[in-house]
Amino acid sequence: MAQRTTAGSRRSASRGEARDRLAAAAVEAFGRKGFHATTTRDIASAAGLSPAALYVHHASKEEILYQVCREGHEGMLRLVEAAVATAGTPGERLARLTRDWVITHAERSDVSRIVEHELDALTPEHREAIVELRRRMEGLVRELVEQGRAAGEFDVEDVPMTTRAILSLGIDVTRWFRTGGSWSADRLGDYYASLALRLVDAR
Amino acid sequence: MAQRTTAGSRRSASRGEARDRLAAAAVEAFGRKGFHATTTRDIASAAGLSPAALYVHHASKEEILYQVCREGHEGMLRLVEAAVATAGTPGERLARLTRDWVITHAERSDVSRIVEHELDALTPEHREAIVELRRRMEGLVRELVEQGRAAGEFDVEDVPMTTRAILSLGIDVTRWFRTGGSWSADRLGDYYASLALRLVDAR
Repeated sequence: MAQRTTAGSRRSASRGEARDRLAAAAVEAFGRKGFHATTTRDIASAAGLSPAALYVHHASKEEILYQVCREGHEGMLRLVEAAVATAGTPGERLARLTRDWVITHAERSDVSRIVEHELDALTPEHREAIVELRRRMEGLVRELVEQGRAAGEFDVEDVPMTTRAILSLGIDVTRWFRTGGSWSADRLGDYYASLALRLVDAR
Repeated sequence: MAQRTTAGSRRSASRGEARDRLAAAAVEAFGRKGFHATTTRDIASAAGLSPAALYVHHASKEEILYQVCREGHEGMLRLVEAAVATAGTPGERLARLTRDWVITHAERSDVSRIVEHELDALTPEHREAIVELRRRMEGLVRELVEQGRAAGEFDVEDVPMTTRAILSLGIDVTRWFRTGGSWSADRLGDYYASLALRLVDAR
């Protein structure tokens, strides 16, 4: 079947592709030398664009960081929403959530490290938008832990702090995980899921 | 009693004081804008010294980072050595270790964040020296977890990965802990000690 593309959809696909290339170049540069030491010129040149072409897509490097952080947080929110909405006991859903959370942080540790650690470099407005996404995400995990406790399946003294500890384990994976090391992301996800069940003392 | 100080000891005290001021200024600047965007001029001026005076103490900003990382890791190693050497069951010693580890990371989250996250900016030789300190430190915690397992007090499937998870919880505290928040460092240390005992399924 012949595919019909209009000039408009081709232009918009190429716009999207350039934005993705800029985001990937920014993640690499931010990871290597930090947000503040990275220039828009570094990012544009790594993406194969002129500095002027970068400004067609983003007003500043902070806007690229915001795009990376926003997409990263939106992805994590979808992951959490999907895990809490599956069928199963609170323990089964918490295991799935932890597993997916850890695998995502391990497999994309370069992006996740920026997404989790560079929020201070955002403008107050952008930072607040990300903090709001985090609140929703953590709120869903807290609700799940609370459900497990109410059902008598979990024994948890402090729900918010235990929730934070579970998410924290996955976040710190971005500091030390290397693809090709002795643990695969999958195996780590399974192991950390079992540790999360211990943290809530699941029956 | 009259105190006798020689010109030499005065000079050396003032040298030590200048080094401490430089380290504190470097930690603040590295934390705020990252290692790569910080100049030796930034550090010297925040410490109230001329750039030339900085070079009396350190050949480069990397040397200041190395001093901060080395002292931080030496302090953590002493903390771990003290905790594993105390009297008590493996569970009691693991609780003390986790408590001290978490409190140190929380109370000095500015320094700890640099110490835990900026190792990639070190020269290969300096990085290797820090990695060696980490190996000794993690090795001591692994031995303690192994002792608890051998004594039938802990139920642990993978000792190295469970050890890493316990230390990881304290390290990630540097990302989110703020002094003056709803949890004190002491309360957090106690709570995380109870979570560490859950991770090893202590009887």
